[in-house]
Amino acid sequence: MATSEKIQIMEKIVSLAKRRGFVFQGSEIYGGLNGTWDLGPLGTLLAKNIKEEWWKAIVQKRDDVLGLDSTILHHPKVWEASGHIKNFTDPLIECKNCHSRIRADHLPQDSKCLTCGKKDFTKAKDFNLMFKTSLGSTEEDAEVVYLRPETAQGIFINFDNVMQSSRVKLPFGIAQIGKGFRNEITTGNFLFRVREFEMLELEYFVKPGTEKKAHEYWQKERLNWFLNLGIKKENIKLVQLLKEDLAHYSKGTAEIWYDWPFMGFGELEGIASRGDYDLKQHMKTSGKDLTYFDEDDKDKYLPYVIEPSVGVGRAFLAFLIDSYTEEEIKGEARTVLKFNPKLAPIKVSVLPLVKDEKLQIIAKDIYKDLKENWFVTYDETSSIGRRYRRSDEIGTPFCITVDFDSLEDNSVTIRERDSMKQKRVSVTELSEYLRVKLS
Amino acid sequence: MATSEKIQIMEKIVSLAKRRGFVFQGSEIYGGLNGTWDLGPLGTLLAKNIKEEWWKAIVQKRDDVLGLDSTILHHPKVWEASGHIKNFTDPLIECKNCHSRIRADHLPQDSKCLTCGKKDFTKAKDFNLMFKTSLGSTEEDAEVVYLRPETAQGIFINFDNVMQSSRVKLPFGIAQIGKGFRNEITTGNFLFRVREFEMLELEYFVKPGTEKKAHEYWQKERLNWFLNLGIKKENIKLVQLLKEDLAHYSKGTAEIWYDWPFMGFGELEGIASRGDYDLKQHMKTSGKDLTYFDEDDKDKYLPYVIEPSVGVGRAFLAFLIDSYTEEEIKGEARTVLKFNPKLAPIKVSVLPLVKDEKLQIIAKDIYKDLKENWFVTYDETSSIGRRYRRSDEIGTPFCITVDFDSLEDNSVTIRERDSMKQKRVSVTELSEYLRVKLS
Repeated sequence: MATSEKIQIMEKIVSLAKRRGFVFQGSEIYGGLNGTWDLGPLGTLLAKNIKEEWWKAIVQKRDDVLGLDSTILHHPKVWEASGHIKNFTDPLIECKNCHSRIRADHLPQDSKCLTCGKKDFTKAKDFNLMFKTSLGSTEEDAEVVYLRPETAQGIFINFDNVMQSSRVKLPFGIAQIGKGFRNEITTGNFLFRVREFEMLELEYFVKPGTEKKAHEYWQKERLNWFLNLGIKKENIKLVQLLKEDLAHYSKGTAEIWYDWPFMGFGELEGIASRGDYDLKQHMKTSGKDLTYFDEDDKDKYLPYVIEPSVGVGRAFLAFLIDSYTEEEIKGEARTVLKFNPKLAPIKVSVLPLVKDEKLQIIAKDIYKDLKENWFVTYDETSSIGRRYRRSDEIGTPFCITVDFDSLEDNSVTIRERDSMKQKRVSVTELSEYLRVKLS
Repeated sequence: MATSEKIQIMEKIVSLAKRRGFVFQGSEIYGGLNGTWDLGPLGTLLAKNIKEEWWKAIVQKRDDVLGLDSTILHHPKVWEASGHIKNFTDPLIECKNCHSRIRADHLPQDSKCLTCGKKDFTKAKDFNLMFKTSLGSTEEDAEVVYLRPETAQGIFINFDNVMQSSRVKLPFGIAQIGKGFRNEITTGNFLFRVREFEMLELEYFVKPGTEKKAHEYWQKERLNWFLNLGIKKENIKLVQLLKEDLAHYSKGTAEIWYDWPFMGFGELEGIASRGDYDLKQHMKTSGKDLTYFDEDDKDKYLPYVIEPSVGVGRAFLAFLIDSYTEEEIKGEARTVLKFNPKLAPIKVSVLPLVKDEKLQIIAKDIYKDLKENWFVTYDETSSIGRRYRRSDEIGTPFCITVDFDSLEDNSVTIRERDSMKQKRVSVTELSEYLRVKLS
């Protein structure tokens, strides 16, 4: 696809996302707040489904991973120990002419300022990306605290608490879903680079010496998660980062890259091999013994850790872009979000063929019944064709139409989103039919 | 129950919560960060289940409520419009002798300082409870922004976006789950008063003139939600606040009070009638028309709003306290968390009667099978009686024991937590049996 075409598609997706209630600009009525996006009714459901699928795959269905939910505000020593106060910086330069601020590492060599076209910049300085605030009730006494830029440290500082309370043995993981904040110098590309985001993070602790195998295992596992949820094979790939691109703590990082329409292949998820860096630092800084006693080997050591970490927003964006499809059906355009049914915000739309009281009664009964188990809508606003298109556009996998035959045979027509094939199903078998199709 | 007994029970609950991995002190390895608590593996699941039940009741199963997920950071104008910058304060006094800081309205008249016993305080000054931070990449240019103290404003500023994208008609609601922050002067009573918390908020918009009925409806609805999830009738009640206790925007507030062991009856949830205060303020400050066009009445107006709002932490605490039970069974003490099965963190514990390979194989098969649908544990660590007690203590509704008869009859024993009654169920019917019992 040509670049201009990709940009055009991206514009259509952003427009659809706003128009149908997936994503709104943050604080839009006040002109927006840079780097923030709010999820509308459908976006909230899509994000919730992404988080739920991650949680099921990473925590519920496994034997070896526990959940955690730590706070966004930690004791400042946490960030001293982790190295974030010193190292969590980006190189910031400023255009001496127009005062635009730019990330030096994002500016190709010898380029001119993108805003004014001059080429006279200040020297790069380290800009710390953590948001600061203060906790406590007087200015003099207040403690400087930071909004976490990652959820991972909340896991490391609870490592001992989890071990003590949950009788776990290596290898095991601790998983967490929660908000993080980074005061990015430049934001942009819709949900791609923002200042407030939700993260899906797993810290998987292993015996030193086994980290390479575990790292490979989690790369495959996470890539398959995206593939199983419908990301097209040609749009996603695993990449091993070069030594010079690694974060300060990293012993090796793989990334899952997605082919973003606005930039080509780039990071969707990181899978880092962090060694024992974090536990060691917290042990040193807190003075608390965080070693693990290996009963089998009668040995004490600090576990190594593998960290698959992905932002909900980036996953959301990848699923949205990947599912976006334009088709021509009998000379008419059709826009479809071909979400995996597990991710689709609305699972079923129930439609009386026309506004007839007898049909409405049956349709509303079916709607109420299905709503006990799934997110379902009822729609009687326009022609059946238009209603199909409206439900295609938000990725609803099934439309159920109640027609006059339904009054006789107690059956309805189920239309499948992607194939548009229709099938007659008895009302009594509807729930079971959908349960199979949706899981 | 006597006060000392209540305090003792509270201590036991806090201790159990830590020991079994429900709640840990925030940043504990660094001496703790005042007013923050982390949820351990079981607490994370309990909180998740509470949120899920609220979401189902408030959004999924209803026809008239949509979800939203707005950011924690809003444009500062939001808080100017809402009145929070001016009015979201508590009266702060300081002891002139020991410099303890106290909320003036929490200090009974004529009391002495709780820390040093003197009675010489500074004059009360307004202390704003919002955490401040700054957004942007240079000190000079950075914009002062606040961590939201409530999620409600994120709903009001998206009111028009939701209306435009979702074709809704009054009355309808917008619901949101998310973190809030308040720099409380004094924190305490475990999860009761904290500085970082998660909220469950609904803004239900109605035609002016119908707000009284809607307010009454939501009071009953919310009280019943707690009762249906197992809170004992005698421990919970509806209270109408007096005019002088109302927040600056309120047209009347009801509260659901719980009988907390540490203080007696006090707020669990608020159900406020906010009038059109918020929409009016945002309309005035942003200059954007937020009126609703009523097609039936051909009339334009600002809707009134009813707001049921509860902290996940307070709900968590109420469910935890209310379910805590000590019993004596044949001279032996038994501690049980009698959670409603929908809230229980772990639904089933699968236990081979003894460590015998044949039993282990069957038990593990059952465990793996059930894990596809629920949070389930497998436990073979100690005597069957001890394992029952361990699962009672965390509120697991069902234990499944695989014994030597299972090898013959392909059946297992299901033990019910509260009655301790045992029942023989065929392995092939297990899933269906549990599905009925757990829903």
